[in-house]
Amino acid sequence: MSGFGSDNFAGVHPEVLEAIGRANAGHAVAYGYDEWTARAEAVFRRHFGEAARAFPVFNGTGANVLSLVASCEPWQGAICTETAHMNVDECGAPERLAGVKLIPVATEHGKLDPDSVAARVTRVGDEHAVQPRVVTISQATELGTVYTAAEIAALAETAHSHDLLLHVDGARLANAAAHLGTSLGAITAEAGVDVVSFGGTKNGLLLGEAVVFCEPALAERFEFARKQLGQLASKMRFISAQLEALLEGDLWRRNAEHSNAMAARLAAAVEGTDGVEIAHPVEANTVFPRLRADLAERLLERHGAEFPFYPWPSEPGLYRWMCAWDTTPEDVERFAAAVAEAAAD
Amino acid sequence: MSGFGSDNFAGVHPEVLEAIGRANAGHAVAYGYDEWTARAEAVFRRHFGEAARAFPVFNGTGANVLSLVASCEPWQGAICTETAHMNVDECGAPERLAGVKLIPVATEHGKLDPDSVAARVTRVGDEHAVQPRVVTISQATELGTVYTAAEIAALAETAHSHDLLLHVDGARLANAAAHLGTSLGAITAEAGVDVVSFGGTKNGLLLGEAVVFCEPALAERFEFARKQLGQLASKMRFISAQLEALLEGDLWRRNAEHSNAMAARLAAAVEGTDGVEIAHPVEANTVFPRLRADLAERLLERHGAEFPFYPWPSEPGLYRWMCAWDTTPEDVERFAAAVAEAAAD
Amino acid sequence: MSGFGSDNFAGVHPEVLEAIGRANAGHAVAYGYDEWTARAEAVFRRHFGEAARAFPVFNGTGANVLSLVASCEPWQGAICTETAHMNVDECGAPERLAGVKLIPVATEHGKLDPDSVAARVTRVGDEHAVQPRVVTISQATELGTVYTAAEIAALAETAHSHDLLLHVDGARLANAAAHLGTSLGAITAEAGVDVVSFGGTKNGLLLGEAVVFCEPALAERFEFARKQLGQLASKMRFISAQLEALLEGDLWRRNAEHSNAMAARLAAAVEGTDGVEIAHPVEANTVFPRLRADLAERLLERHGAEFPFYPWPSEPGLYRWMCAWDTTPEDVERFAAAVAEAAAD
Amino acid sequence: MSGFGSDNFAGVHPEVLEAIGRANAGHAVAYGYDEWTARAEAVFRRHFGEAARAFPVFNGTGANVLSLVASCEPWQGAICTETAHMNVDECGAPERLAGVKLIPVATEHGKLDPDSVAARVTRVGDEHAVQPRVVTISQATELGTVYTAAEIAALAETAHSHDLLLHVDGARLANAAAHLGTSLGAITAEAGVDVVSFGGTKNGLLLGEAVVFCEPALAERFEFARKQLGQLASKMRFISAQLEALLEGDLWRRNAEHSNAMAARLAAAVEGTDGVEIAHPVEANTVFPRLRADLAERLLERHGAEFPFYPWPSEPGLYRWMCAWDTTPEDVERFAAAVAEAAAD
Repeated sequence: MSGFGSDNFAGVHPEVLEAIGRANAGHAVAYGYDEWTARAEAVFRRHFGEAARAFPVFNGTGANVLSLVASCEPWQGAICTETAHMNVDECGAPERLAGVKLIPVATEHGKLDPDSVAARVTRVGDEHAVQPRVVTISQATELGTVYTAAEIAALAETAHSHDLLLHVDGARLANAAAHLGTSLGAITAEAGVDVVSFGGTKNGLLLGEAVVFCEPALAERFEFARKQLGQLASKMRFISAQLEALLEGDLWRRNAEHSNAMAARLAAAVEGTDGVEIAHPVEANTVFPRLRADLAERLLERHGAEFPFYPWPSEPGLYRWMCAWDTTPEDVERFAAAVAEAAAD
Repeated sequence: MSGFGSDNFAGVHPEVLEAIGRANAGHAVAYGYDEWTARAEAVFRRHFGEAARAFPVFNGTGANVLSLVASCEPWQGAICTETAHMNVDECGAPERLAGVKLIPVATEHGKLDPDSVAARVTRVGDEHAVQPRVVTISQATELGTVYTAAEIAALAETAHSHDLLLHVDGARLANAAAHLGTSLGAITAEAGVDVVSFGGTKNGLLLGEAVVFCEPALAERFEFARKQLGQLASKMRFISAQLEALLEGDLWRRNAEHSNAMAARLAAAVEGTDGVEIAHPVEANTVFPRLRADLAERLLERHGAEFPFYPWPSEPGLYRWMCAWDTTPEDVERFAAAVAEAAAD
Repeated sequence: MSGFGSDNFAGVHPEVLEAIGRANAGHAVAYGYDEWTARAEAVFRRHFGEAARAFPVFNGTGANVLSLVASCEPWQGAICTETAHMNVDECGAPERLAGVKLIPVATEHGKLDPDSVAARVTRVGDEHAVQPRVVTISQATELGTVYTAAEIAALAETAHSHDLLLHVDGARLANAAAHLGTSLGAITAEAGVDVVSFGGTKNGLLLGEAVVFCEPALAERFEFARKQLGQLASKMRFISAQLEALLEGDLWRRNAEHSNAMAARLAAAVEGTDGVEIAHPVEANTVFPRLRADLAERLLERHGAEFPFYPWPSEPGLYRWMCAWDTTPEDVERFAAAVAEAAAD
Repeated sequence: MSGFGSDNFAGVHPEVLEAIGRANAGHAVAYGYDEWTARAEAVFRRHFGEAARAFPVFNGTGANVLSLVASCEPWQGAICTETAHMNVDECGAPERLAGVKLIPVATEHGKLDPDSVAARVTRVGDEHAVQPRVVTISQATELGTVYTAAEIAALAETAHSHDLLLHVDGARLANAAAHLGTSLGAITAEAGVDVVSFGGTKNGLLLGEAVVFCEPALAERFEFARKQLGQLASKMRFISAQLEALLEGDLWRRNAEHSNAMAARLAAAVEGTDGVEIAHPVEANTVFPRLRADLAERLLERHGAEFPFYPWPSEPGLYRWMCAWDTTPEDVERFAAAVAEAAAD
């Protein structure tokens, strides 16, 4: 199997696996009090600013929930898009674990804008109403679109002017930075972002994310929350070593540029095919095709074993094709040919 | 650094690292719907009975909390020892995440007995009182002692006779089975245990535990709880491959026998040393010495960098020396010599 | 002050106060094991069916949250309207206390319909998605509209066909039954409703609501949940005596018919006034006027002390006028005159 | 029925019922924005200091849990006695709702002392261990004993020196002050207490407690927590009017002195009776007799309907006799005679 099911379907980048092997050298103090974690923290500071503090965690659910826990009281709320992963793919973890209610906003392409945020800041001080405290955006979004640095800065300004924080669910932050040709800091700390769920797994790690506080006051006593919510790794060096491998050089960008390029190539290859309509701008590593019913059926029947892909639940007939760090141009060509063939029959 | 700080300080066993490498082959469906996870589940059934269901998770906190969530309503309670990891080293995760109150029992060597359990089953049906629902024991215990199969069967019988379940925090289950010379099943499913937190990390994995339901009715819809509590790995094959490597052959037993043997050797080597008194029976991979104050001070001052170890908080003057899968006889000899030297000065 | 601020602004009906006084006779066993509570339970069974089980609680937040706790696992969800009290006026209590995510549906007049419910039952069995388990409707709705018995039966049928339960937030259930001229049972148990938050406070009690399980299997061990969530009254007889006074005869209906009639009278009196537009059908005890800005300002400035009322946050220019069991025709006439005067200036 | 079952078995003091009746005058703004609540707050400031802030709630579970929520992060803990109501009679509410783990201390007569507190402040800064943040004592204790002002001041000093807060579960605070002949402030604010669960229900109210912050910084945004945890009364004036009636004059002290005096009288009357041993000093309104088995059996068989009382679960053969504001000297005499008769047979 290869292809377009999810960037989670891909394996571990060889440089990351090597870093794990190198970290496997004798004993190291557990729970992050080791040299690999110290180096990973330093690397995060290079990317996210000297004041930033980074805490490795296991997965995106953990990073997102902990970002909310660090930012909110349980009677506060988080403004997000209706399509946000937090809202539709965390099985209610933010509500159960942080107590925080999500305040969803309908969007066309998965991006919040300052006016929508400001419009949700209502009933301030009214104890019957959940009080918005965080704006959370996904970068890149779940629909494959990307916020520019200016858009993020505008959201941060609006958020801060209403005494809200800005969180970025950066499961695919690298893809966004690669698309924009910027640094990771340019679209986070430098744009006014307060806290980031930094994603490594989808960009070539075996497993590993981090909660990055650009605003370090939020990190106070965060160790306790990470432990209590089950996100503290005992042999943390093996997560930290991966994060270091990703971020010390340009591996993060190489992987992201590659998967972005494969998505662009795929979108271009199927453009104009009868029965295929691209629903959202292809800015990161994902293509959202609307597929004619018979086309989708034939394609999955003939090629689903090799090239699995899935309907996207928000709209009938919408599907998601996702590229990964290891998607090859040949994968794209062969899949595009399969699409063309299915469309022609 | 090597030595006796913790079995979490050790790295990854080479056979486990190889298994990770072999699993890194192209794409695989995420979230456990992959062949490695299917094989790991089959291997767990071989050990824990054909009815058993196993769910890989990230860490022990996750396994323990999820075991309680699957077993209890939030107004129910779990009977444990005062020294249980759940009670003193999970930062209140069971209470916060499962809502479950722990009902601690004082013990001499970390082992519960049926009478103590029965005595805590009081006020049944009284809505003001937390209702005991689970007995949770650690095997091996936090104090390095081991329950026999008969002792576990007696606890299971007592628990079941009061409509309670029996959970085993098996972070070091392999060490217990190795000590007893039994199978894993003999001290769990066959002895009446309902649910196990099976530990891999301390026995040579990079990271990886599993919630194993010997009583499969408890597993119903468990997938949702695992996801919501942040313990669902996207690239699960890399956890499952490790668990498979540990359990398909005898690696679990080899590692556990080795670390047990190193602890026994260490205990024997320091026995009779003036200023050193072994506080608990050495049955698994841990030695709990009571150390004369000046001896402890000298030992840590001279050898703490190479051989770090820590006070055990329950009692002044008590320390913990822990052996791992990679502890060598030379480590033991050199450390024992250092102890003798510190005692003699 | 009198008037139209809220049915919570009204006091205690004299017959209810008398019942409290009569219950103040010597000692009675606490926590509901008293004769008043036994009688109140019997009265509830007369209204909600012989299988029904009723549990007095303090307030609507308690009744609503406990209804969810009894119905759902924390990873399940509740389908409701966007304007539901649960969604906008409980300060996130359902999410924090029950862990349950609300799945809001936009409506015109605050009423759910079967198709909207069915459309939200998606991704069944997908562990990443909150699983809908309850449909919760408000009767009367927060917008003053009322579901017919047939509409509720249709919702129940849809809910049950998807393995969902139907909950009614009946803070104003009496007003709905009074409007329809039916019994309380006709629009709950007989229509297929599983659990009801029965409201007494807004209909003339000092304080007191009840969770009523038409489906008694949901009530199993509910005592523990009520206690743990802080909704168990020690001197419960004084809540039960009020509920009994309300429900043993026709006080519930008299009060509700009266407040409904006052709202109808008020709506009729302002109809056609320039600058006043009634936004929602007036079926219960509430009028939702859209008011011209200058009119609203003058009205509140001149008469706000005697006749306070408030903007309704969902829409600029929308207000709520609410009648209570003690609203008098004279209140209505004088207020309508004040509206006319403010409109004319 | 009268007698000694519980101070919760008693009804409402006539002056309190009158206050409820007087408050039933027309409309008042809901949720505490009314004149009765403003006056009650002022009365609380007279007792607990001009900086104090008081928030009426429904019951003791609510007051206790909210006190913890206002004082602690969920990964912090509360040091209490093993016999604390919080620990054994709240059905796990503190753990489930506040996330806070209780750290119980064994005592002889239900009173904590500074050394026991200091000994529990361990592992500070260790993210694996719940961090003590609050010391919570009950005044009067569950065993009928009373802390002196000096004892409380010493606990406060110890608590504050370790950066802990001091909370008083004052379900029977009035009984303690009456016993000591002090003001309420002398054993709370003036002794260094930070937050009090002030109890009204057991001292003659229909229903009503308050969270009183002697340290007002803890009250910031407390309104949201009270609402979200289901403890905000809509017609709050009827709770506030009761609290005002209790505290504006000396009703709180009269009721408490009376119930204390009845307990002392009962203890004196049974003293020396064969088969009756008083287990704890009788300082408030409760007597804890150890009863010979046959005596207890006969007493309950013959007089249990009129004079119900219950075993106390901590020790076989221990019972609780509790006096209330309405216990009469005749009740005491007749009950003491019944005890003597049962002892003699």
